This record gives sequence, structure tokens and C-alpha cells, in this order.
Amino acid sequence: MYIAVIGAGQCDQETAEVAYEVGRLIALKRAILVCGGLGGVMNAAAQGARETGGLTVGILPSETRTGASKFIDVAIPSGLGEARNALIARAADVVIAIGGGYGTLSEIGLALKMGKPVIGLGTWEISQRGQRDPGIIVAETAQTAIEKAFQLTSGI
Amino acid sequence: MYIAVIGAGQCDQETAEVAYEVGRLIALKRAILVCGGLGGVMNAAAQGARETGGLTVGILPSETRTGASKFIDVAIPSGLGEARNALIARAADVVIAIGGGYGTLSEIGLALKMGKPVIGLGTWEISQRGQRDPGIIVAETAQTAIEKAFQLTSGI
Amino acid sequence: MYIAVIGAGQCDQETAEVAYEVGRLIALKRAILVCGGLGGVMNAAAQGARETGGLTVGILPSETRTGASKFIDVAIPSGLGEARNALIARAADVVIAIGGGYGTLSEIGLALKMGKPVIGLGTWEISQRGQRDPGIIVAETAQTAIEKAFQLTSGI
Amino acid sequence: MYIAVIGAGQCDQETAEVAYEVGRLIALKRAILVCGGLGGVMNAAAQGARETGGLTVGILPSETRTGASKFIDVAIPSGLGEARNALIARAADVVIAIGGGYGTLSEIGLALKMGKPVIGLGTWEISQRGQRDPGIIVAETAQTAIEKAFQLTSGI
Repeated sequence: MYIAVIGAGQCDQETAEVAYEVGRLIALKRAILVCGGLGGVMNAAAQGARETGGLTVGILPSETRTGASKFIDVAIPSGLGEARNALIARAADVVIAIGGGYGTLSEIGLALKMGKPVIGLGTWEISQRGQRDPGIIVAETAQTAIEKAFQLTSGI
Repeated sequence: MYIAVIGAGQCDQETAEVAYEVGRLIALKRAILVCGGLGGVMNAAAQGARETGGLTVGILPSETRTGASKFIDVAIPSGLGEARNALIARAADVVIAIGGGYGTLSEIGLALKMGKPVIGLGTWEISQRGQRDPGIIVAETAQTAIEKAFQLTSGI
Repeated sequence: MYIAVIGAGQCDQETAEVAYEVGRLIALKRAILVCGGLGGVMNAAAQGARETGGLTVGILPSETRTGASKFIDVAIPSGLGEARNALIARAADVVIAIGGGYGTLSEIGLALKMGKPVIGLGTWEISQRGQRDPGIIVAETAQTAIEKAFQLTSGI
Repeated sequence: MYIAVIGAGQCDQETAEVAYEVGRLIALKRAILVCGGLGGVMNAAAQGARETGGLTVGILPSETRTGASKFIDVAIPSGLGEARNALIARAADVVIAIGGGYGTLSEIGLALKMGKPVIGLGTWEISQRGQRDPGIIVAETAQTAIEKAFQLTSGI
């Protein structure tokens, strides 16, 4: 089971704590954490997973490992720039979006396009003609997000 | 000047007419139209541009040209799947989003992340915590969309 | 019909003349020239095609069009780094390799792996256990290279 | 330290034994094995590493994990087709090529282009104008290949 945690490379303390908790719970469930390998949400989630004995994978946009979070076990410098966002979505069985900027928005779109469940924790709200799109499944806590992630992928 | 038109591979007649008009105006302005090369919005925009003497480029997700719109002059089968969305955003000086599904949402996110202007015609509305994000510049007509596209890239 | 011309970003005068002639013949045959969009062999082939009224496409490794040959009509900045070599091979119906460095070697390998014919003009020789591999079809002149290119793809 | 082992998806027993031994030695050196994640040389090297307690990473060309070697710990389905070859070269500090087909040839070219050392065990010989190119460092045994790999990357 591979769970991607996506979110911005910089975040406030509260968001980092949520990301850390999500990472911790992913490791407890013995799933592999996949992320973009950089700072902010990615770093906090990787720290949570690593400190709980989990395995963390970071797919970096750059050509080298410089700038990778120190909590990443397997750092893959893709050299693909923003196109690496598609790799993160592709590598995941389910995606948890925490906060986030435009890169996170793109990963949400890519994951939904690929038919992967996306769970949102304080992330983007997407609508068309004033109608909220149901693609992003809203969770209020890290615990609920993980529960939903496993419910939605039971059978994989 | 390269203008990307993004939108779903299937669309209703009204959306297709808007896309056709956008394509037509791009060609009149002697800009190159870049799109995903498939049906729906992509096909209609390419038709509008081609029938007005413009040059049309389609960057396909597939490994072959099969399925490309017949209005595409330069069809590039990327073989990258959804990761090709990043190429479309990267190739554009400005992006016009018309209607659209999750793939379009991902291209909007990628383009905004890359710092490219995105103009929306009946496309996604994106918010966080109930606050509308100003990234997507809303246009009401094809004519306005093109005017904004050129205003926002004057100097390129 | 799309013909890729691959070769190093810097080359001697003799190699440039061969590349120019290949580009010229591609345009005369009304095929689209695809290349990496930079200097050396790419620039010379694009010049030959452009000055003969042909259409030239350059798929660049970089995130911007800076550094593109001025003889490229459609410049696509991929932002993929060396991974863009796969796009060039993928976009071609047939590949003509002229001289070349390690990037050219990789494109030869990618094209052969994809089952595309590769014609070589003073390019790499590849062997295993001292046995020359027949994958690269050797041509002695630009004229012969183009003839072989069209023979090998008649039916496409 | 990340070492890529590249080679064909199908191979004879002798080649598989060399790949297994290379994988085993990579794990003994506590380096991470990166490969294409499929059969043949990739599978044998991953088995050697896994059975020696090492960590194995496979970057697959496909959109799903189906077809991945069972000895891969971290399987990343890239969905990029042959363009994933660039990811394998990019992710490696040093590349060991064992036997191999055209895909392997492309990875050798990509790695050399990126300035990564490439060590060959019964793999391609590359020449220009009858002159052997020194890019691929020839090793006769798995043991020698690993020794050279560590010599060439000491300092990383």
C-alpha cells in the first residue's frame, strides 16, 4: 500500500502537525509514504512516518538530491520539474492533500484524473458553476483521513 | 507567442463553439495554438485556428498519433500519459481553460505553479477556506479571453 | 511524416553541412523535421529545412525557449531535461543520427527500443561481444539517408 | 549511495547469476539498488539484493505495478514508457550495465550524458569511426564491477 501525502513546500506549524500525524499513522498502518520529498508538508509527513519506523519515498523535481528532506529514505531526483507531480499521483494508491498551493492543486487534478481517491485536510475546494465538486473527500482530522484512505482502497 | 487551450476531451455544443472562437482568434493574432491534441475542446479550438490559417500543435498522452484531432498540424505523441499535461503548461506563454474535467484542473494547477497566466471561460472555481483564489482570471467571452491573454503577456 | 534528426549540440563544419543537406531534403519531401531544438547538428538541420520551406519542431530539454535555434518554427520547452530524448524518438517515424555524443547514443537506443528505424551518418557503431549490431542502418550521404528513411517507412 | 543495475527484461541463466551477485554485493555495501523493476537482469539483481537484506527500488515504465519483480521493495509505476529510462539514470550515483538490449543502450547513453560513471559487464561496446569509446568502464566480474563503482563515486 502506497499513500501519497501532498502539500506545499512551506507551511505553518498547525499544518505541519497535521502532516506529521498523517505520516505517523501511515507508518503505523505499515503503508509506504510517497511525497515530493521537499520541505513543509512533505518534510513533516516524512518525519512522522520515519520516526514511527515507516518507509518514506520522495520524488523530487530536481536533478539532484540536494534539498531533499532528511526524513526521506528513498530520494528519487526526477529531473522532470513540475512533471514529477504526475509521478507522485501515479505512484499512489490513495492521495492525502494537506493545505497546499498550486502544485498541490495540480496533483489533486492528476490523481482524480487517474481515478485515485483524494482525501483533503484543509486543502483546495473545487467547484464549477457554483456547485462544489465531490472529487475531494473532506476529512477533519488526520485519523479520519487515514481511515477513509484505507476504506477507499480496501480491495487493492 | 504560444497560447494553450485546455479543456475536456468531450464537451457540449456551446462549449465547442466557444473553443472554436478562441482558436479562431488565436490564429488571427498569429499566435501558435498548443493543446492536448484530442477531441472536445481541443479539437474545436484546433479547428477554429486551422480554418483561420493558424498553426496548431497537439501534445498527446499516447505513444502514437492515433486519436489525434485532424485539425492538428504538429502532433507530438509523448507517451507520457497524464504527465504530458505539464508539457502543455510548460509550452504555453498563457493558458486559456474552457470548461473542463480533472485533467484541465491539473493543467490549471501546473500553469499557475509555473507562473503562467491562466484565463478561465466557464471552468473550475478554486477556493480555500471559502475564499475564492484569484489565480484563474475569469473571462466571459472568447474575445475577452484573448484580449486578457495578450494584455497579460505583453512584454514576452 | 515526421523525421527526427539527432546529433550533438556542437559539431564541426563538415558535419553541419551534412545536417543542413539532410534538413533540406526532409523539407523537399514535405516531411516535418523534429529535433532537440538546440545548436550544432540540430541547428544546421533546422536551417536546411527552414530555408527550403519546411516545418521544423524542436523539443528542448529546458523550461524556457532560451537557447533554441532560430530556425525552429515550433519550439517546445519540455522542462524534462534528458528525459526529453524519449519524446524526440517517440515523435519520429524514423530517426537520422548524424555524428553525435552520448545524448545521441541514448536517442538511438530509445528509438530502436521503440521499434523505429534509425539511419546513421557518421554516428555511433554499437556492438556486443565484438559483433556489430545491425540496428543502426548506415548511410554514406544525406541523399542515401533520406532515401532509406522513406523506404523504411513506406506504408506508415 | 544509489546504484542502478540496468539490463534486459529477459536474460540467460549466466547473465542472471552475474546480476544476482551484483545485487548481493550492492546490499552488502548497504547501497540502495535502483532498477527498472521488471524481469531478467532487473529481477535477478533485485533478488540478490533483497535476499541479502538490501533495499530495492524499481521504476517501472507502466501505469500500474503489475509485472513488477516480487523482489522490489519500492515499486514506482511511472506511466512514462521508455522515458522512465532517464529516471533510472538520474536516480543513480553510478550505473552497472549487465548484458542488455536497446533499452539498456539508451540508459547507458543517458547516464554518460548526465556525467554518471557506467560500468559494463558483458554489455554494449560503443565506438565511433572504429575507435572504441572509453565511456563504459569494462569489468570482468561482479566483484570488480562493485569495486569500481565505489572507487568512482568515493567522495559523493
